[in-house]
Amino acid sequence: MNESQRKTAEGILFTDQYQLTMAQLYYRTGLHEKNVQFDHFFRNYPDYGTHKAGYCINAGLEWIVNWMQTAHFRKEDIEYLRSQTTTTGRQLFNKDFLAWLRKNGTFDSISLLAIPEGRVVHPNVPLTVVQGSLAMAQILESPLLNQLNYQSLIATKAARIHETGRGQTLIEFGMRRGHEKGVNAGIRAALIGGADFSSTVGISHVLGYPPKGTHGHSMVQVFMALGEGELGAFRAYADVYPDDCILLVDTINTLESGVPNAIKVFEELKRKGHEPVGIRLDSGDLAYFSIQAAKMLNDAGFTEAKIVLSNQLDELVIWQIITQIEEEAPRYGVDADNLIRRLIYGVGTRLITSNGDSALDGVYKVVAVEEKGEWIPAIKLSETPIKTLNPGYKPVWRVYDDRSKATADVLGLQCDDPIKNKRITLHHPTDHTKLRILSKGEVSEIEPLLTQILTQGKLTYDLPSIDEIRAVRKNDIARLDSGVKRIVNPHIYHVSLTQALWDLKQSLIESLKKDTSYHVKTL
Amino acid sequence: MNESQRKTAEGILFTDQYQLTMAQLYYRTGLHEKNVQFDHFFRNYPDYGTHKAGYCINAGLEWIVNWMQTAHFRKEDIEYLRSQTTTTGRQLFNKDFLAWLRKNGTFDSISLLAIPEGRVVHPNVPLTVVQGSLAMAQILESPLLNQLNYQSLIATKAARIHETGRGQTLIEFGMRRGHEKGVNAGIRAALIGGADFSSTVGISHVLGYPPKGTHGHSMVQVFMALGEGELGAFRAYADVYPDDCILLVDTINTLESGVPNAIKVFEELKRKGHEPVGIRLDSGDLAYFSIQAAKMLNDAGFTEAKIVLSNQLDELVIWQIITQIEEEAPRYGVDADNLIRRLIYGVGTRLITSNGDSALDGVYKVVAVEEKGEWIPAIKLSETPIKTLNPGYKPVWRVYDDRSKATADVLGLQCDDPIKNKRITLHHPTDHTKLRILSKGEVSEIEPLLTQILTQGKLTYDLPSIDEIRAVRKNDIARLDSGVKRIVNPHIYHVSLTQALWDLKQSLIESLKKDTSYHVKTL
Repeated sequence: MNESQRKTAEGILFTDQYQLTMAQLYYRTGLHEKNVQFDHFFRNYPDYGTHKAGYCINAGLEWIVNWMQTAHFRKEDIEYLRSQTTTTGRQLFNKDFLAWLRKNGTFDSISLLAIPEGRVVHPNVPLTVVQGSLAMAQILESPLLNQLNYQSLIATKAARIHETGRGQTLIEFGMRRGHEKGVNAGIRAALIGGADFSSTVGISHVLGYPPKGTHGHSMVQVFMALGEGELGAFRAYADVYPDDCILLVDTINTLESGVPNAIKVFEELKRKGHEPVGIRLDSGDLAYFSIQAAKMLNDAGFTEAKIVLSNQLDELVIWQIITQIEEEAPRYGVDADNLIRRLIYGVGTRLITSNGDSALDGVYKVVAVEEKGEWIPAIKLSETPIKTLNPGYKPVWRVYDDRSKATADVLGLQCDDPIKNKRITLHHPTDHTKLRILSKGEVSEIEPLLTQILTQGKLTYDLPSIDEIRAVRKNDIARLDSGVKRIVNPHIYHVSLTQALWDLKQSLIESLKKDTSYHVKTL
Repeated sequence: MNESQRKTAEGILFTDQYQLTMAQLYYRTGLHEKNVQFDHFFRNYPDYGTHKAGYCINAGLEWIVNWMQTAHFRKEDIEYLRSQTTTTGRQLFNKDFLAWLRKNGTFDSISLLAIPEGRVVHPNVPLTVVQGSLAMAQILESPLLNQLNYQSLIATKAARIHETGRGQTLIEFGMRRGHEKGVNAGIRAALIGGADFSSTVGISHVLGYPPKGTHGHSMVQVFMALGEGELGAFRAYADVYPDDCILLVDTINTLESGVPNAIKVFEELKRKGHEPVGIRLDSGDLAYFSIQAAKMLNDAGFTEAKIVLSNQLDELVIWQIITQIEEEAPRYGVDADNLIRRLIYGVGTRLITSNGDSALDGVYKVVAVEEKGEWIPAIKLSETPIKTLNPGYKPVWRVYDDRSKATADVLGLQCDDPIKNKRITLHHPTDHTKLRILSKGEVSEIEPLLTQILTQGKLTYDLPSIDEIRAVRKNDIARLDSGVKRIVNPHIYHVSLTQALWDLKQSLIESLKKDTSYHVKTL
């Protein structure tokens, strides 16, 4: 794509066609400027097949907010829409609608509440609440979901990997296997979720994190082809990067060639007064090789040398590596804890593409329409009860138990005030037999989660830095029950409705079953 | 990201840090302008867990070539690199190297051969061959893999879905779940592989395909909340789009409300002289609902009305839907073949993210270094035999059998000429016990696959249109054995080495095993 094509593909036309045809229908029927509310939420935690998430990390808000503030229908966009035709060859979008779009087709009317980035989030909780004119709120659906679904997916995966790696340095390595330019958004999300650095240069610079890396097999191969061998390659690298020397030791044979050659070069470096950093293992049994390499490095006096592990890592593989090291290292006279603290994880494909479950199922559903100054809840029934929407504007509270651990997210109505109540009744979203009652004494804190971000298109929120978002994530994960954090078979965290919201939902379902052109009481 | 940040993140710094540190090492050791060859190839077909690909569709070449022709080290990029520091606080990239990058840091020295887009391709076959100066060929690794891995992954998935759907119209629906802006590249690849349209507006315009769509649940919900019900929503839609009327029928109850209301509106349309297009089903048992809906539409005289299916479709789900329709439709007096021909598939998440296997494992490996006018093969041994590189420049031929079906891809040396030979000896890449000999009579055609694309940075190839690429794909898939096309447990297609390449590889492995600082004969 050239620059002009890119602007077309990434500007306001980065949306689905049906958003535009629906917007025109709203225009024709006079509904286009009606005030509505859409909720964005996801229905299921990522399920990676052999393992599954018990929480998600919210991410992507800043980038969609930035996009909203510049996206508008340019002359070229309108021209293109004007050229679209129906099956019978008529103009698909009419002149008056296009004139309205050109003039009003921005997100200046949109207000947005959201749970901030870095927060732990759960299914069926509104993460983003969009209020504004129907036509533009509708057009926003696709780009908003595109940004938030992907970044939250990757932040979640990064958090899991970071937790499993016991907080050791985690470097994102995935641009070569990621989904084209989307990797830049993924890298931002990985940093939010728990990666400490990325190998990708440009976006690291933009986000203010120094890019990290070692060297590739190609460097060793070139020196080998020219008759200078692996040792020649290592020496050259140590010569150019004496204080940042991490050597990739598996081009020929890890334990017979790579590690001995690395130790030779490290000894030379040391004699010259430099501190070698470590080695990288990129193939084979990483647990076994890291124990053996640690033993060889220890014997040579490099007891602090780092060992970077890469090659199809994810939380499950890292868990297995750590377990195997704990079991086997002592047998070889290597201290397991010391070795685990020397590990650095380079995680590529399986982080940046969230391998196993490559999409978060976030949706964007209309939940209320304003009519004569009153909000009317909108609902959608479904063959699957869990898919039946929670109607209207719903404040969200997080309830912490007496150990200060998060115990439930509660959706209510504006008339609700759980902070003042003596006891909190928690309803399962769909199963009326599941009730939980919390007394005041069991609750240490009740925290509202939704924050005003945009007010009529204006940013009314201080966008935090990535470091600040990382601190939020760290704090939230620390307040999760360890059962919820299990990487396999996690506990189900409670997402509940207050009595008032439960009652409203039931009455709507009943009226809808009776009459499909129902009229309901306002909120 | 603002415009300036985007240029940083998507320009030449859209590469991995270690490419730049290796490039500086090559510069320091005087190797940076040495002529080398890198091969790009993948090792494994996508494996989606319950099903697996037996072929891939090559895609992405045009976009990486376009990127190469504009990417260069801008002043801002050099400034940023100048600011990077080592662990001891020294400048990481030196002045002389940065000056060289600023002046020579383009892809103008790079020549590129490739198998064209749309071609069926197989593991371990060089898809892209990069020849040029070591430093810049090294920097190209990450962006080239990023573009080609992703587009080939998606073109492959699209081809599988298109084939399973028996060539019925396939619309790409995935932007809301795809990986941020990467979806635009994915949509291009989906069109190459077999999608006929996409719902995303901007990129469809750029690529010259009209975007397609129906309407969402939100439209029906808004009309319901305002007391006009599903029927009111359908009527409004039919009124605005009388000749393009596809109605989403599952907001309340598919068979009791959606389809009857749609039929009512279709009858009104018909009376006004319009031809209704059809309905969309987005939840529940799509096979069952499409049979029942077809029956109701048929009974009302709409025997040609289309039925758009969506909701977590992929090749396996479509296969199941078709099978179920074939089994069950006759029981309800619905002609299965007629119904299957009326289906349109809207495929989102599972296509654009290649759900089940979200990355193609393409790699980029140095295979030869030029020294004093001679090409020296470069090799990398591996604990896994299949990972041992095939050295040097390798022409690739596709051999067709006497049924005109592709039967093997053959990698050879430049001295090889399988077209002239009486018989062709095919060696398994790693297993010396596996040999296959084809006589002249068994071979209908031998076709070279690699084409010159760039010559010293200059485009020396007519980039085909997407329509032309689609025709190539169609033709190639038609020439595949049906066993290779099976969506579950496909036959293994033969990728083989000629006798001469096999011999060279063995001699290199031997010499490398003997001496890690080996010297080998030139090619």
